[in-house]
Amino acid sequence: MFIETIYTPGLASLSYVIGDGDVAAVVDPRRDVEPYLEVAKRRGVDIRLVFETHRNEDFVVGSCPLAARTGASILHGRGLDFEYGELVDEGRRVELGAVSLTVLHTPGHTDESISIAARHHDTGDSPLAVFTGDALFVGDVGRTDFYPDRAKEVAGLLYDSLFDKILPLGDGCILHPAHGAGSVCGDGMADRNFSTLGHERRHNPMLQLSRADFIEAKLAEHHETPPYFERMEHLNRVGGDLDGPFATPRGLSVDGVAKALDGGGPVIDVRSPQAFAGSHVPGALCIPESMVPAYAGWLLPYETPLTFIADDRAQVERVGTHLRRLGYDAERRWLHGGITRWETSGRRLGQVEAISARRLREAIDDVLVLDVRKVSEYRSGHIEGARHVFLGRLPALLGELPRDRPIVTFCGSGRRALIGASILRQAGFTRVQNCFGSMKAWRAIEGPVVEGAG
Amino acid sequence: MFIETIYTPGLASLSYVIGDGDVAAVVDPRRDVEPYLEVAKRRGVDIRLVFETHRNEDFVVGSCPLAARTGASILHGRGLDFEYGELVDEGRRVELGAVSLTVLHTPGHTDESISIAARHHDTGDSPLAVFTGDALFVGDVGRTDFYPDRAKEVAGLLYDSLFDKILPLGDGCILHPAHGAGSVCGDGMADRNFSTLGHERRHNPMLQLSRADFIEAKLAEHHETPPYFERMEHLNRVGGDLDGPFATPRGLSVDGVAKALDGGGPVIDVRSPQAFAGSHVPGALCIPESMVPAYAGWLLPYETPLTFIADDRAQVERVGTHLRRLGYDAERRWLHGGITRWETSGRRLGQVEAISARRLREAIDDVLVLDVRKVSEYRSGHIEGARHVFLGRLPALLGELPRDRPIVTFCGSGRRALIGASILRQAGFTRVQNCFGSMKAWRAIEGPVVEGAG
Amino acid sequence: MFIETIYTPGLASLSYVIGDGDVAAVVDPRRDVEPYLEVAKRRGVDIRLVFETHRNEDFVVGSCPLAARTGASILHGRGLDFEYGELVDEGRRVELGAVSLTVLHTPGHTDESISIAARHHDTGDSPLAVFTGDALFVGDVGRTDFYPDRAKEVAGLLYDSLFDKILPLGDGCILHPAHGAGSVCGDGMADRNFSTLGHERRHNPMLQLSRADFIEAKLAEHHETPPYFERMEHLNRVGGDLDGPFATPRGLSVDGVAKALDGGGPVIDVRSPQAFAGSHVPGALCIPESMVPAYAGWLLPYETPLTFIADDRAQVERVGTHLRRLGYDAERRWLHGGITRWETSGRRLGQVEAISARRLREAIDDVLVLDVRKVSEYRSGHIEGARHVFLGRLPALLGELPRDRPIVTFCGSGRRALIGASILRQAGFTRVQNCFGSMKAWRAIEGPVVEGAG
Amino acid sequence: MFIETIYTPGLASLSYVIGDGDVAAVVDPRRDVEPYLEVAKRRGVDIRLVFETHRNEDFVVGSCPLAARTGASILHGRGLDFEYGELVDEGRRVELGAVSLTVLHTPGHTDESISIAARHHDTGDSPLAVFTGDALFVGDVGRTDFYPDRAKEVAGLLYDSLFDKILPLGDGCILHPAHGAGSVCGDGMADRNFSTLGHERRHNPMLQLSRADFIEAKLAEHHETPPYFERMEHLNRVGGDLDGPFATPRGLSVDGVAKALDGGGPVIDVRSPQAFAGSHVPGALCIPESMVPAYAGWLLPYETPLTFIADDRAQVERVGTHLRRLGYDAERRWLHGGITRWETSGRRLGQVEAISARRLREAIDDVLVLDVRKVSEYRSGHIEGARHVFLGRLPALLGELPRDRPIVTFCGSGRRALIGASILRQAGFTRVQNCFGSMKAWRAIEGPVVEGAG
Repeated sequence: MFIETIYTPGLASLSYVIGDGDVAAVVDPRRDVEPYLEVAKRRGVDIRLVFETHRNEDFVVGSCPLAARTGASILHGRGLDFEYGELVDEGRRVELGAVSLTVLHTPGHTDESISIAARHHDTGDSPLAVFTGDALFVGDVGRTDFYPDRAKEVAGLLYDSLFDKILPLGDGCILHPAHGAGSVCGDGMADRNFSTLGHERRHNPMLQLSRADFIEAKLAEHHETPPYFERMEHLNRVGGDLDGPFATPRGLSVDGVAKALDGGGPVIDVRSPQAFAGSHVPGALCIPESMVPAYAGWLLPYETPLTFIADDRAQVERVGTHLRRLGYDAERRWLHGGITRWETSGRRLGQVEAISARRLREAIDDVLVLDVRKVSEYRSGHIEGARHVFLGRLPALLGELPRDRPIVTFCGSGRRALIGASILRQAGFTRVQNCFGSMKAWRAIEGPVVEGAG
Repeated sequence: MFIETIYTPGLASLSYVIGDGDVAAVVDPRRDVEPYLEVAKRRGVDIRLVFETHRNEDFVVGSCPLAARTGASILHGRGLDFEYGELVDEGRRVELGAVSLTVLHTPGHTDESISIAARHHDTGDSPLAVFTGDALFVGDVGRTDFYPDRAKEVAGLLYDSLFDKILPLGDGCILHPAHGAGSVCGDGMADRNFSTLGHERRHNPMLQLSRADFIEAKLAEHHETPPYFERMEHLNRVGGDLDGPFATPRGLSVDGVAKALDGGGPVIDVRSPQAFAGSHVPGALCIPESMVPAYAGWLLPYETPLTFIADDRAQVERVGTHLRRLGYDAERRWLHGGITRWETSGRRLGQVEAISARRLREAIDDVLVLDVRKVSEYRSGHIEGARHVFLGRLPALLGELPRDRPIVTFCGSGRRALIGASILRQAGFTRVQNCFGSMKAWRAIEGPVVEGAG
Repeated sequence: MFIETIYTPGLASLSYVIGDGDVAAVVDPRRDVEPYLEVAKRRGVDIRLVFETHRNEDFVVGSCPLAARTGASILHGRGLDFEYGELVDEGRRVELGAVSLTVLHTPGHTDESISIAARHHDTGDSPLAVFTGDALFVGDVGRTDFYPDRAKEVAGLLYDSLFDKILPLGDGCILHPAHGAGSVCGDGMADRNFSTLGHERRHNPMLQLSRADFIEAKLAEHHETPPYFERMEHLNRVGGDLDGPFATPRGLSVDGVAKALDGGGPVIDVRSPQAFAGSHVPGALCIPESMVPAYAGWLLPYETPLTFIADDRAQVERVGTHLRRLGYDAERRWLHGGITRWETSGRRLGQVEAISARRLREAIDDVLVLDVRKVSEYRSGHIEGARHVFLGRLPALLGELPRDRPIVTFCGSGRRALIGASILRQAGFTRVQNCFGSMKAWRAIEGPVVEGAG
Repeated sequence: MFIETIYTPGLASLSYVIGDGDVAAVVDPRRDVEPYLEVAKRRGVDIRLVFETHRNEDFVVGSCPLAARTGASILHGRGLDFEYGELVDEGRRVELGAVSLTVLHTPGHTDESISIAARHHDTGDSPLAVFTGDALFVGDVGRTDFYPDRAKEVAGLLYDSLFDKILPLGDGCILHPAHGAGSVCGDGMADRNFSTLGHERRHNPMLQLSRADFIEAKLAEHHETPPYFERMEHLNRVGGDLDGPFATPRGLSVDGVAKALDGGGPVIDVRSPQAFAGSHVPGALCIPESMVPAYAGWLLPYETPLTFIADDRAQVERVGTHLRRLGYDAERRWLHGGITRWETSGRRLGQVEAISARRLREAIDDVLVLDVRKVSEYRSGHIEGARHVFLGRLPALLGELPRDRPIVTFCGSGRRALIGASILRQAGFTRVQNCFGSMKAWRAIEGPVVEGAG
C-alpha cells in the first residue's frame, strides 16, 4: 500500500495517488495529469478511480483527462449537479487491493464536499489516513464564505463535519488535505504538508473552539474571491475534454511586442521583480513567474492572446502550464530573445525606483504608501497613513489614487508591491517607487506599525 | 546555425532540426514529436517549416502533429497527391535566419523525393549540408523497388539524382540521410550516421558504378516489403490528426491473459529472447522489445487489442511508443506483475530448448535447420540443407514445414530465430530448438557454409 | 518544515531529511549521498546534522561522506565506541529552524540505539514525528538477536524503550522507522512505509503483548545473520573516507570471462531469473539484480574482482551501486555485449529446466525438493519431504545433498530457487530443475503443505 | 562507429568521444568528466584513450580524472614537459575497433599541438574526420600569440600545419575543432560547430591567404590573455588528482554576507544584469552566471572564499561548476534565500540607473562613455570620444578615470558594461549609468560611429 502526494506549487494544492497491489485511485487531480500517470507507471498500477473531494474553485480539475487516459471512474459527493462522473453517498465503500476507501459526507466548505477514509485490511477498521479536501487543513479549516446567504448554516455544517465525521476517525489517522500553505483557500495553514488528526485535534486553533465560537470566527474571516473562480466553478461542474496537446508559444519580434502593446493586448513580464525593476518594456505588467498562479486570475483576461517577457522560452512554457491550470487556453506569445532584444533595439526602457525601508521612513511624510496586501495582513499591522487597496482590485480602483503625489508601493516583502507599481506605471502614474523588503524590512528596522482596519 | 539529429532506434530513421537565429525547420519528423519541441525549447527557436523528403513508407510521419503544435508549414516534393501541406518545386529557396534551404528534386526512390541543400549566408553558395532522404545513405543508396513496372526507369532516375543533383553540391558538403544502419530501407548502410559527399563519392560502392552497372545492380537487389508499408503509405499521403494523448496500457490478470489467448487475440512477449526461452506463457508470440519496430508490421494485426508480457509496465509503454510510430493505435493490455504472476498462478509454463552451434553440428543430420533471415543474408552464406523461410513470411508458410522432424530455428545471432521458434510452438510444432548464436556462432566454430540461392 | 523519505530499494532501508527554514538534518544516510544533497539543493537548505539511530549492520552508512561534503556534525547514541562523530545523551535537544529534535535513548535492538522526536515550535510539546531506527517498524519491532548472551535482557530493554519512551509520544505522532518490508532487519513488516504511533499501538502485533510474552516471542524468533554484517559493523563503527569517485566497470571479451571462470573468480549473472534459465554462461552464479542487496553478502567475496553478465552496462553500474552500499569496492568487470556475445562465440551454453508446480506434484516421488527459504517461511508451510537448506548457507552444505537424484530447487516464487539451482550447477549437480512459481504456485494448485520444523 | 560532441557552454570548448565496437577515445575532456562516462555507459563502450590536442590554457583539462576512473591512457604531442601521460609522435596510429586514429604534429598555436585523423577500415585511407584542437576552427584559426619572441616563426608553423598536414586530408573530411564561437581562443569563429575541410578551404578567411599574408595577419591580431591562463597552463602541465567529490556551498545569513563585504572578501552577484540593476547588495560585484566562465579568471582571486548572491542554490552550484573548470576550488558560500533576504533585512539597497541609447545620444556631451569591450570590437566601431578600457583590466586602471563626471558604461549589448558599472560602484564612483543595449542599440538608432584605435 502506498500514498504519494503530488504538490502543485503556486496553487499550493495537494493531490494524491493511493494504491495497493495492481490498482490505484487519485484524489483531486490537476489538469496536467502526467505526474499521476508517472506514479502509475513506476508503481506498475492501474488508476481505476478518481475522487473529487469537492468541486474545486481555484484550478481546473483533471478528472476528465485522467479518466480518458486510464478508463478510471470519477466519483463525486452529492449536492451539486455535476455533468460527469458518478455520485457517491455517505458510507460508500470502494475496495482497492487490500485497501478500502470509505466516503464521508463532510459539507461546510461546499455542500458536496466529501472526505475519504483509507483502511488496510490487515489493520481492521482503524483508518490509516483520511483525505479531507477543503474541510480540514494542517493548522486551519476550509473557507465557508461561498454561500453568503447561508453563512452561519454552512459554518455550522463544517463544524459538525469536523467534529462528528473526521475527528472520530482517531488520533492516529494521518491527515491529507487538498491545500497547503500559500493557497488562496485558507490563511492560517502551517507551512508543512503533513499531520495527524491527533495533532490537529490538539493544536489546530479552529478545533479548540466551541461550536458557537467556531461559527463566529468563520463569520469574521475575510477572504478574497478572484474573478476566475467563477470560470473554474463552471468548468469543474460540466467537465469535458481539457486534455492536450497544446500549441507551443510563438516568438514575436520587438516590433511584434510593440504592436501588441499598442493594440492593448497585455504584455506580461514574468521575470524576477528585481529584473523588472532594473529594465523593462514600458507598458508591461509585472507578474513574476511564481506569482502567476495567485494573481493571473485577478489581472489577466481569458479571451485575448497573452504576450510574455521572460528569461527564456522554458520560462514561458512553465508559465503556460500555470495558466492552463487556471483555464487559460488562449494563444501564448513571447519576445524572442527576451529583454535583451528589446534593449538592443534602441527603444525606450522602463525602470522602477527602489526605496529601502530606511529611506521610506525618512521620506514618510512626503509620499503616499500604497499597501496592496490582503485585508487580513493589513489588519494585523500596517504603516500609519498607508492607503490600503488589495492588489487584485487595484486596476479597478486606480481612480481613487492621487496623481500629484509620489506613491510608494508596499506589501509583505516587496514583490506584490512591484506588481502594483507596474499597474500604476501602465496607468500613467509617474512618481512611483517600490519598497523592496516592505513590511518585513519595516519591522526589521523597527518602523512604527498600527493594527486594525486602518 | 545548428543541425541536431533525432535518431529513432528500431526504425533506424534519422530526422533533423536545422535552425538559425529564432527559427528552425524539421526534416522528416516522426509521429511522437516531443524531441523536436524539446530542441526548439532548448534553443529558443520557433519551428516554422517541416520538410518531408518523400512520402515515408516505414513509419507514420509526424508532420501534421508538429504543424498543429507549432503553426509550421509542411513542404512536399511534386509527384504524389498529398492531401496536406504545400508542394515545392526544384530550386525553391526558403530563408531560415541566415541560412537558406534549397529544394532539389531527386526522384528514384519515389517520384516525389526531394533533397534539401543548406547554405549559410556567410559562406556564399557552397552548401554546408544536404538532407538526402532515401536517395543517398552512408554507404548505400535508396531502394528502387516500389514501382515494379518501372524498375529500370526509376533506378536510372536515382542514378541521375545522385550524380546530377546531389554529388555536384561538392565534396565538402555534409550528408544527412533519412536512415541509418538497421533500417528496412537499405541493406548496405554503414554503421555510422555521418559522412560527406566527398567521402561517399570516393567510397560508397554504389557511387563507383557506371549508370548501366548501377541500374543492373539495383535490379538485382532483393528487398522485403512488410505488409504494414501499405498502411503507412496511405496515412502519410492523407495526413490528419495523429497526435496524442493516448490511453495508458490496461493491466490484465492471469485469467485475463488466458482468456485473451483463448480468444485468439495475440499475446506478445517482449522480454529478452533468453527470458522467453527460460519461461513463457504457452501460446505467446516472442518479439523482443528491440525487434518490435522491425517485425511488428509483419506479425501483428492492426484492429485487435494487443496483450503483452513484459519486464515491467515501463517496457509496455516503450513498446507502445514503437507501435504508435507504425500506426498501431488499438488498445494495449499487459499481464500485471509480469511473467512471475503467471508462474505463481500454477499454470503450465513454456520453455524453448537452446542448442549451441557445436551441438547443432553434431546433430545436423537429424534436424531440419530453418533459416529465417533475409534473402540477401541467406545468399551470402548458409548451412547446407537449411530450409529458408524469411521470418516475416513464416506464419503463411507453416504448412510447408514437416511436423515429424526436429526443427532448429536459425538466423544471424539467434534472436530472430527465437521469434520463429515461438511461431512454430504456437502452431503446435513440438520438437523445436533454437540455435542461440546461430550463424555467428557457426562461423566461429568454423562450421561449413555454402553461398547462393540454396 | 519538511520531512522527505529516501528509500533504498533492495536494502528496504528508509532514511530521512528533515528540515525547516535554511537548515536540515539527515537520519541514517546511505553511502551514496547524492539524494540527500539533491534534496538540500532543491529545498535550498544546508545539511547541518547527521543522526545515526544505531550502528547499522546491513549497509555502509554515509555519515562520513555526507559530513565531508556539507560540514555537518554526526550524532550517535551512547553504548558503542564509535571512532567518529559525537555522542548524545537522552534528552539532548537540537534546534533546526523552528523545529526541535529531541534524543531518546531506546536500546534493545542495540545498546546505542536512539530515537529522535521532532517538534515544531508552533505546536508546543506534541511531537509531530519520531524516527525510531530499528526499535519500532510498521507492523513489527526490531531484532534482538545481536547479543546472544543477553537475549532476554535486550528483549526486555526493547520492550521498555517501546512502551516507556516511544509510545508515550502520543497516538498522533507519525512513525518513521529505519526499514520497510523486505529488509533483513525484520520479518513481519507491513508493505507500507507510513504509520502513526496510534495505529501501531493498536495494531502492531508485538505491541499487543505483555512484557513477558513480548520477551518470549522475541526469544523464539529466528533471524539469519549474513556474514557481511561483521564487515558493516566494523566499517560503521570506525567510519572513514568512503566517498567516490569510483572506477567504471571494465569490459571483458568472451575469452576474458572464460579466463575468469577458469581462475575461479566469480562470474555473476544479474539478468532476470528467466533469462538465466533460458541461456547462460556455464559456471556462472545467478543473482538477479534485484536480489543482489539481499544475497551478495552471503555469496560474494570481498577481495576478488567480480565479473558480471548483464543486460547492459547500465545494469552493471546499478549492481555496482548496490554492492558499494554493502562495502564491495573491488574491481568490477563485465562481459562486453552481454550474453549474446557469449552465444555468438560458439561456446557451450547453459540452461536450467523449469518445472511447474503441477508437474512437480506429478513427479514428487522421484525428486528431492530443495527448499531454500528462510526458516520462518519454511516453518509456516512446506512440501512434505522437502529438504530445507537456507539459500545463504547452501554453498557450505552442498556435501549433504545427494548427487544421484534429481533435485528441484524451490522457494517462495521461484527466484531464490534459481540462485540455488545455479549454485548446484556450479558444483556439478547435473539433474537440477527449478520450480518457477514455487510455493505460491503450489498453493494455487492446492498442493499439500505441512507446517513446523520439518 | 560514432562521434559525440560534448560542448561546454561559457568556455565554448568542444570535446569529443569517438568510439567503435566496445572501445572509445576522448579528445580534450573537461574537468567534470561525467558526460564522457555517460556516453560510455549509454554506448556500452570502454574509454581506453584520452588525447589532448595541446596543453589547454583556458580550462582545467580532465585527462587525469578520466584516466583514474576508466584506466585509459593519456596521449600528448611532443614539445612540452608534461608530467603525466605518454608522448606520441607524428604518424603514430592507434586502433580503436574498426577505426584507426593517426597523430599529426600540427604546431603553431603551441609547440606540442597535434591533430588526430580518424579513418574507418571499411573506407581505406580517406579520413572521415579530423580533430584539430586549436589549429583550425570553423571560420578561423588558432591564436599564435603565446610565444611573443617567436611570433613570426609560430605563425608560419601554423600555416604549414594547416596547409601541409590538415588540408591534405581531403575536402570530404569532417572538421572537429577544440573551440566554437564565443571562446577566448579566437575571435572570428562561426556560430556553428560543424564544417568540413572542403568548406573551410574554400571559405575560411585565413585559408585564403598566402603564407606571408597569413603571418602578417596573425601578427596584427590582438588577443587578451587573462591572468588565470598561467594557472591553467601549470595545472595542465603537471596533471594530478583534480577529481571530486566537492563540498556543497554553505549558506550565509545577511549578517554573514555583510561581514564578508567588510572583510573585503568578494561578494559576487550572478543573477541577470537586469536584476542586479534593479536591486543589489551594495558593494557586490556583478558577474551574471553566463559570463562567469569568461570573466571570473580576470576578476576573482583563487585563494579566498567566494560569496554569491544568486537566484537560488541551484544557480550557485552551476556557477561552482563553471569555476571548478577554471580551477577555483576555494570555499563557496551564498546568501541563503537570495536577494529577498537582504531586502527584507532593512539594509541599504543598490540600483544601477539604466540609460537607453536614445537618451545617451541626447546626453552625450555631458557624460564620459566608458567602453569595456575587447580591442578588436572597439576598433571595429565605437562612439566618438568614448574612453576604452577592456573590462578585464578595469580594476587596475580605475585611477585613470575621472570621478567628477557622470560615466556611462558601454559594451556590445550592455551586459559587460554592467560588470564594469559594478566595479565602478564598488570603487566609490557615484554617478554611473549603464547603457543597456549599448552598441547594438546605438547602431539601431543610427548613432554615429568611428572606427580605428580611438
